[in-house]
Amino acid sequence: MLLIARKALALAHNKTIRLTTREVHCLSSILLSPPLVSLDLPENWVPYSHPPSSIAFEGEQKTVVIDGKAIAEEIRTKIVSEVWKMKNDVGKVPGLAVVLVGEQRDSQTYVRNKIKACEETGIKSVLAELPEDCTEGDIISVLKKFNEDTSIHGVLVQLPLPQHLDEAKILNMVRLEKDVDGFHPLNMGNLAMRGREPLFVSCTPKGCVELLIRAGVELAGKNAVVIGRSNIVGLPMSLLLQRYDATVSTVHAFSKDPEHITREADIVVAAAGVPNLVRGSWLKPGAVVIDVGTCPVEDSSCEQGYRLVGDVCYEEALGVASAITPVPGGVGPMTIAMLLCNTLDAAKRTSL
Amino acid sequence: MLLIARKALALAHNKTIRLTTREVHCLSSILLSPPLVSLDLPENWVPYSHPPSSIAFEGEQKTVVIDGKAIAEEIRTKIVSEVWKMKNDVGKVPGLAVVLVGEQRDSQTYVRNKIKACEETGIKSVLAELPEDCTEGDIISVLKKFNEDTSIHGVLVQLPLPQHLDEAKILNMVRLEKDVDGFHPLNMGNLAMRGREPLFVSCTPKGCVELLIRAGVELAGKNAVVIGRSNIVGLPMSLLLQRYDATVSTVHAFSKDPEHITREADIVVAAAGVPNLVRGSWLKPGAVVIDVGTCPVEDSSCEQGYRLVGDVCYEEALGVASAITPVPGGVGPMTIAMLLCNTLDAAKRTSL
Repeated sequence: MLLIARKALALAHNKTIRLTTREVHCLSSILLSPPLVSLDLPENWVPYSHPPSSIAFEGEQKTVVIDGKAIAEEIRTKIVSEVWKMKNDVGKVPGLAVVLVGEQRDSQTYVRNKIKACEETGIKSVLAELPEDCTEGDIISVLKKFNEDTSIHGVLVQLPLPQHLDEAKILNMVRLEKDVDGFHPLNMGNLAMRGREPLFVSCTPKGCVELLIRAGVELAGKNAVVIGRSNIVGLPMSLLLQRYDATVSTVHAFSKDPEHITREADIVVAAAGVPNLVRGSWLKPGAVVIDVGTCPVEDSSCEQGYRLVGDVCYEEALGVASAITPVPGGVGPMTIAMLLCNTLDAAKRTSL
Repeated sequence: MLLIARKALALAHNKTIRLTTREVHCLSSILLSPPLVSLDLPENWVPYSHPPSSIAFEGEQKTVVIDGKAIAEEIRTKIVSEVWKMKNDVGKVPGLAVVLVGEQRDSQTYVRNKIKACEETGIKSVLAELPEDCTEGDIISVLKKFNEDTSIHGVLVQLPLPQHLDEAKILNMVRLEKDVDGFHPLNMGNLAMRGREPLFVSCTPKGCVELLIRAGVELAGKNAVVIGRSNIVGLPMSLLLQRYDATVSTVHAFSKDPEHITREADIVVAAAGVPNLVRGSWLKPGAVVIDVGTCPVEDSSCEQGYRLVGDVCYEEALGVASAITPVPGGVGPMTIAMLLCNTLDAAKRTSL
């Protein structure tokens, strides 16, 4: 079976090894199609090795910078007043519980920012910190407690989890009505299916669409390309844009000619997690670009010794795109604002 | 609110009416993005009104016709032997329950074919027929009975249901372990998410991928276009092709230039339900075409007074596509074979 997996890996990397019929039958007795999880190979993006030496566009485009920070601030101000109103009217405030496992620096920063945002908007927050070597049972018992706690309306598990833990099993334990991250497969299925409505839409995609709408971008009928297909951004982003009647193409590490496909798009959402993957030459002049990537890159000229870089080569996109989100200050603040929004919504539902 | 819905409808049909800010706020108080279900407008495909007067391709392509009937027959033969083995080894046979509401001719035919296929492969089948004017409660009590019945391993509700019934609510009642149609949102979410595996993949998409694999078509890295985004075919088809690492674009009634997008595809799956929507000019020479459409069109030269027509203009596709499924005899027989497969799998799981 290991040999089959290796062959499948080779196949996925475009080598010509093929599974024999017997090997395929090992995987599935009647059908030739293998089990789906066996298809999930890591996304190894090929770095863009030959940047064009010069990019020339006739009649350079004026690029609007979409100020995610300001929009998020505006939304947070509204949340403050709704939380205040809820407290006054029914004597309760929304409550968010965050589960943090281990001591990964990035995760600690993200969690700190979420807790701080809760404090600033009047949302109650509870942080459960578990050691790196905790068991699934430890996390599940914490989740059960939060699931039952009526003062907690949203529960999230900060990702990624340490390797030894079953992420799917743990996320499935978050009570559906408190799944403010929208990562439960039932919420994802309801996002995908027409005529259904998920209880929560994942925060980053929700924030991206809100930015597009506020920037006056029409989505229906537009060609949208989503670069990346992670469960937490790319996938729900594609599903959400389709709900808005965009014609969505999803590009990933196995896509043959991502540049060509991206150049067809009116709207580009880059969420691959690869700094500067999307060059200016990938963009159709006038395209709207939402950059979800935030990758720290060493830079001694910055106070902290690094700066944050997006998936899009920002300098090249200026003058080609009609609008773009900056990194930082674009999608990031919106993600947290949407988390507050989802937590408030969850609290409103339970007060009905 | 009705006015907003009307405006949204007009918007979706590319008229220029826009929602005012106040109207948008009616839909959602803090965010500008409206609730998702309010976005679900009917798919009104614009018929292709100006067919090209002549289509010329240099060096005409030899088109392989993918014989779905023969492949389905081969799969059914294997199912027969597995069912027989199960009966001999553990003294049970797989059982399928079908719920049919009303007397719609097409639905009756589909159900009859499914029951007949069960009989021919040794799978036990039970049919529950309910009158057109039955209540949701009537259907749910039938489903509950089947959900509990240990001799029944698969349960399906024939769609479409009469207008007065809540399809989502009813489908959600099918026990997940018996959802052989794969229409439960939890199955759909697990199909969409990487690292998860649904208990069942919907029969038609599963059959289409099986045809592609048996026809020797590599999927990883290929450009695939799925035309149509229904919950029962288009959506799970797009999700499944992406699991096989194809670069998937989904075209629907709101897509601005479906012909252009389709012409980029190495693999075209047509599931719009619009006869002859996809013309020869829509296809890239050498593309592989899977035609899910089956629409009866009047034809006095046929014995029954009608013939079945696919979504693809078959005569035009011959000589352009490298391979194509015929209608009938392509995807249709595979759908039923996959239903039998899913029922057998469900029975195997309960015997573990």
